Amino acid sequence: MHVHTQLLPFPPAANFVSNRVVVVIDILRATSVMVQAMSQGAREIIPVKTVEEAFQLAKTFPSNTTLLGGERESRKIEGFDLGNSPREYQGEKVRGKRLILTTTNGTKAFHAVSSGKNVLVGSLLNVSAVAERCFELDRDLLIYPSGDEGNFSLEDTVCGGMLIDRMIKKEGKSFTLTDASRSAHILYQRFEANPVDAFHLSHHGRDLGDRGFEEDLPYCAQVDMTNMVPVFKDGVIK
Amino acid sequence: MHVHTQLLPFPPAANFVSNRVVVVIDILRATSVMVQAMSQGAREIIPVKTVEEAFQLAKTFPSNTTLLGGERESRKIEGFDLGNSPREYQGEKVRGKRLILTTTNGTKAFHAVSSGKNVLVGSLLNVSAVAERCFELDRDLLIYPSGDEGNFSLEDTVCGGMLIDRMIKKEGKSFTLTDASRSAHILYQRFEANPVDAFHLSHHGRDLGDRGFEEDLPYCAQVDMTNMVPVFKDGVIK
Repeated sequence: MHVHTQLLPFPPAANFVSNRVVVVIDILRATSVMVQAMSQGAREIIPVKTVEEAFQLAKTFPSNTTLLGGERESRKIEGFDLGNSPREYQGEKVRGKRLILTTTNGTKAFHAVSSGKNVLVGSLLNVSAVAERCFELDRDLLIYPSGDEGNFSLEDTVCGGMLIDRMIKKEGKSFTLTDASRSAHILYQRFEANPVDAFHLSHHGRDLGDRGFEEDLPYCAQVDMTNMVPVFKDGVIK
Repeated sequence: MHVHTQLLPFPPAANFVSNRVVVVIDILRATSVMVQAMSQGAREIIPVKTVEEAFQLAKTFPSNTTLLGGERESRKIEGFDLGNSPREYQGEKVRGKRLILTTTNGTKAFHAVSSGKNVLVGSLLNVSAVAERCFELDRDLLIYPSGDEGNFSLEDTVCGGMLIDRMIKKEGKSFTLTDASRSAHILYQRFEANPVDAFHLSHHGRDLGDRGFEEDLPYCAQVDMTNMVPVFKDGVIK
């Protein structure tokens, strides 16, 4: 299995997407929110690029079925139901609901890799389950860290490295790692004992702390909280 | 001092180049050749993008003053004087000569960052001298690994991480590392005991070995063979 990691959040070359399983990672915080919401029984999530698009789309559904969530500059958007902290997405609030989500990095990433054969939602919260699913699907893999406003993101790449680690430790397949995947694996090994340390060193992790979201860091660093592996298809995560 | 590392060999955003010191790194093998040739007394090096351009430019100089060097698919180019192995660039052969060089990754990189305030040639062969020069110049820094045919290069990034390591261990300045620079530093730490191990794991290092250039790997992994810090300015390295 050929495993590539797209270190910068640019649309990848076609040969790194077509016919591949793609795992989108934005652990601070969009994909953590998605995994959390689906594990709490949300019906589906529709990632959209703009706030305007979110409001317009919400009007097309009965009002009590749909929630608006996401952030700009890390903060909840005016008129939205929920921000971008996974801690908000609990129990009755989200169970059975459709969620329309717009965030700075993560929701854009899904549209950049939508031509992948299977597009999965990855985070630390579900990393072993994602590894298991990739192993079963048995296709070449693209790991897509969503980045930090167009720049490289340490924490997303460390999560990608943990996914690689989980896969190569299973028996029965051989793996070809590109230099980028090998580096993601090395970066993961540096933070293996305590993944939250990567958040405290990263630009976006420190920025979230400065903006009052310090408690989200240990929350998003929980490894294998759930076996849920949400899938993005035809614009919707289920 | 703000230190950014461009992990993929794309033209960087203007704010990461203008007014910065830029260090171009292509240790397998273009910048190792450049440092080696200048340390052996070459007069200057002109990096050009194409083989045709190299032949045309050579015609404008007296024939006994100029050598053509470089590679395509790692091998010496037909009609050229020298290939792209630093072991070839020794003593009388290069002393006092002008070198016109064209390689797959490295020579293109210089043109991508030519708007930098100071553009330095970095490799393991001169890494501590480059760190010293960057420290003296005292400007924000862009480290530019030249990559592997448009992809991320492990070995160039490890060299960038060693440069960062040399700088942050000096006293008297504070450093701001982007996530990319922090990651380059972590990758360096993984190979600190034996940098040539990074070559044996990297795609390009293994490829060079397969093509018969195995001996270039330990040669290019020699740390601090020289204090020479070549500078790229107005299209010429001196």
